[in-house]
Amino acid sequence: MDNPPLYRQLADHYRAAITAGTIAQGQRVPSVRAIMRQHGVSLSTALQACRQLEQEGWLEARPRSGYFASSPRRSTVLRLPEPDTGSTPDPAQYVGIHARVSDYIARGRAYPIKTNFSGARAAPSLYPAEELRKAGVRALRRDAHVLVRAAPAGGNRHFRAVLAKRALENGLVISPEEITVTHGCIEALNLALRAVTQPGDTVAVESPTFYGLLQILESLGLRALEIPTSATTGLSIEALELAVRAYGNIKAVVVVPHLQNPTGSIMPDAHKQRLVRLCEQQAIPLIEDDTYSALADGENPSTSLKAWDRSGNVIHCASLHKTLAPGMRMGWMVAGRWQARVAMLKYAQTRDNPDWPQATLAEFLESSAYDRHLRRLRVALRRQRERMAEAIATHFPLGTRMSIPDSGVTLWVALPEQASSSEVFDAALLRGILFAPGSVFSNSDRFEHCMRINCGEPWSEQLDDAVRTLGELVRDAGNAGRRKPGALRPALMPAPVPAPATLGATATWFDAIGDDC
Amino acid sequence: MDNPPLYRQLADHYRAAITAGTIAQGQRVPSVRAIMRQHGVSLSTALQACRQLEQEGWLEARPRSGYFASSPRRSTVLRLPEPDTGSTPDPAQYVGIHARVSDYIARGRAYPIKTNFSGARAAPSLYPAEELRKAGVRALRRDAHVLVRAAPAGGNRHFRAVLAKRALENGLVISPEEITVTHGCIEALNLALRAVTQPGDTVAVESPTFYGLLQILESLGLRALEIPTSATTGLSIEALELAVRAYGNIKAVVVVPHLQNPTGSIMPDAHKQRLVRLCEQQAIPLIEDDTYSALADGENPSTSLKAWDRSGNVIHCASLHKTLAPGMRMGWMVAGRWQARVAMLKYAQTRDNPDWPQATLAEFLESSAYDRHLRRLRVALRRQRERMAEAIATHFPLGTRMSIPDSGVTLWVALPEQASSSEVFDAALLRGILFAPGSVFSNSDRFEHCMRINCGEPWSEQLDDAVRTLGELVRDAGNAGRRKPGALRPALMPAPVPAPATLGATATWFDAIGDDC
Repeated sequence: MDNPPLYRQLADHYRAAITAGTIAQGQRVPSVRAIMRQHGVSLSTALQACRQLEQEGWLEARPRSGYFASSPRRSTVLRLPEPDTGSTPDPAQYVGIHARVSDYIARGRAYPIKTNFSGARAAPSLYPAEELRKAGVRALRRDAHVLVRAAPAGGNRHFRAVLAKRALENGLVISPEEITVTHGCIEALNLALRAVTQPGDTVAVESPTFYGLLQILESLGLRALEIPTSATTGLSIEALELAVRAYGNIKAVVVVPHLQNPTGSIMPDAHKQRLVRLCEQQAIPLIEDDTYSALADGENPSTSLKAWDRSGNVIHCASLHKTLAPGMRMGWMVAGRWQARVAMLKYAQTRDNPDWPQATLAEFLESSAYDRHLRRLRVALRRQRERMAEAIATHFPLGTRMSIPDSGVTLWVALPEQASSSEVFDAALLRGILFAPGSVFSNSDRFEHCMRINCGEPWSEQLDDAVRTLGELVRDAGNAGRRKPGALRPALMPAPVPAPATLGATATWFDAIGDDC
Repeated sequence: MDNPPLYRQLADHYRAAITAGTIAQGQRVPSVRAIMRQHGVSLSTALQACRQLEQEGWLEARPRSGYFASSPRRSTVLRLPEPDTGSTPDPAQYVGIHARVSDYIARGRAYPIKTNFSGARAAPSLYPAEELRKAGVRALRRDAHVLVRAAPAGGNRHFRAVLAKRALENGLVISPEEITVTHGCIEALNLALRAVTQPGDTVAVESPTFYGLLQILESLGLRALEIPTSATTGLSIEALELAVRAYGNIKAVVVVPHLQNPTGSIMPDAHKQRLVRLCEQQAIPLIEDDTYSALADGENPSTSLKAWDRSGNVIHCASLHKTLAPGMRMGWMVAGRWQARVAMLKYAQTRDNPDWPQATLAEFLESSAYDRHLRRLRVALRRQRERMAEAIATHFPLGTRMSIPDSGVTLWVALPEQASSSEVFDAALLRGILFAPGSVFSNSDRFEHCMRINCGEPWSEQLDDAVRTLGELVRDAGNAGRRKPGALRPALMPAPVPAPATLGATATWFDAIGDDC
């Protein structure tokens, strides 16, 4: 491996001195000129080293006095507290995603975005664009009629065979014929919910959960019952049991067992088993969204909920949208005892998926290129996540809490209680910064002080600046005390756009936010 | 141009003699040996000429007597009668597509299909496979990140601009931003219906209509009200007016104004205007499925219903699935005043369509290659349609009626009243022949004696043989008198599979039938 650049070696040297106590907290470190002399480096190298350490929080610059040893704010960022799981959720509260979302849309569109923390996937540069293109060209050359012949029923045979083989890694023993190929995991979730529910039914979901799911529920006329969810272990099984006992009318449960969106939690295997058993005993269909599991670090691949399914009660939904090819929107599902009904609904909704993308991805997934890509992607995400967590710890005010997941692409940040993320959202937009405010991850107000931050982009000064700006805005919002969303609007802000009566306009906002799975 | 082969010149000679009356009907024509001598041709040429004329119906072979002049049965095939539009349709009859469909599924799967008349699109060889592949490769090379970057909101800008420009030919003046790109016309219809109806609502449709639409309605919990439809001029506006007056609860109207499926009718412009006005006055959303209009012959392109729309009340749905690229399933819609709601539903259902297929098709549609392809396709379809109509006229029994559309890819055939197409379907399957029986084009029994025949395949002896076989089976079914479907089952037939209680199994049957739009 190459040596790190000189300024980094220099930064390492002083960081070690500070952490070892050789330079005490608050003590002045040698001046830039002294560093130049002592280490025989240029001005720019000495400055870069100091700025690096300042950025990391190990140095604090005091105007006209120089740099002083400090310690990064990281230690002041607390883990998120566990949710209260002892009280019964009130389904009456949870009827459709709130109309304020429509207000965000219009605002989100009104500003040019320079820094986008709102998605939940990696930057295009982290996916194997060139290898996929080559596979795509080969698929076009291999099969003269692939673009002009109707697609094969249920999906491309080879693609489904490769998926079935890959599923073994997650403990799933399925035949290719059990797989229905879909337009992303989003279509799979739509089909799963349409297969097992009727409009007006109640569906238990995680809280917080990704707003894409809340939007699907609302568009299908379903009611979301939000179940307390730990940022560490995911959906609370106790809380779900309580809700099942209290209501008895839950028609489906939807969970993201691995790298839950937005918290990044991973459900322990013992919880998975309990959840599968509970749903089977209560005859409640269990819908698993397994879009992110390939991003999980660790030696053993994650075991899907469906691996414990013995009665076909679990509907497994997954996608390659986050892990391999965000431009191809390829998903699939294993619908268990609802397979025939799902196949009918899929046929009536969008017919069979086109063949070419499946043929292209089959070739890629079958090879070790996919494993190599995943390893690289996980390493990159880990680095980016750590840099982002560090930056948030450095720039956000005391009292900020954070989920610190071991894997994945997002961080879930809880601001000090008095700060409203909706206000920060408004103010950040004015500065060209977009993130996903907590209020859209629930039909309730309980995540108003939270935000989801994407870590998909390779780290850059621009990102660091944007986090610093966000930190300032959070501090301002906190200092101003807790107010109603929109009560204090920056001077440059246009008047709020009235929320339309229909759901209509919601789409545009989601477009701007760019969250999809 | 090359001269036609010798046997065709010979056939032309004798056909002219018969039509001119030089050889009278029923008169013996020269023997094969006499023809060989007289014209100095080989045995095989003389035989080919006679078989050609026999196939066309101008000669009749009598065992051990030779050939006798005849006239093709074509004149015995009558146009379809106009529907009765004076009586009010009874919506109580029309709740979901009948369960017998599930029975067909299982039967359709049980047999290997050699000749497939069931689809409603052309053979792959009639689409520009090579040009599309090249455009596809160029699109992959032009844009390095096209497979790994999230798709653009609403659709590819270039593709939508080209569609908007092409739409001018059909009298539509729209901006690219008014277009929502979808997964085929099927998704567009789903979104249109979801945007304007609630489960339980009644939707007026053509009768007969394509079963894909009936299946969508059933899957969305909607009730189909079937409006009498002419095989020449399409939906009866009088009958619709009557139904609107009688019920007042129609929440949407769905029509295929050009090359209606299955009849091939084309709605006159005056009817279109009346229909648009009626729906506007009654505040009933009008959904137009314009999938086939580019296949219509004639000097002027068809004018879309939406061209007369002044209030955004018409939702225009279309696709390239039948006209250009059956393997890419590309559709789009112009949703008028429901655009925002449609965009939201599209986002919640399948997110934005992938970029690459749109970029590929944009390039093709923009060039004159598309126009050249359409001209070639229309010529090929005309030839195939005429051959098919000729073959049906020749082989089917007296009393058969047929729609003879000027354009399009299917023929709608009404058997003599006593023949059941469900029985013919069963018997044909045993012989490896698949077609779409009339019973699936309505929730009622009124098209039990009809069948839809695809003319998408280039003509061949195999097709002629299959039509001959169908003709024999129709004759048998007619001779046996009208029976209940399934009452007379051929000896080799497996026992009917019980229709499942759910809609589930329906999908597979539709897969086998291969009808999609």
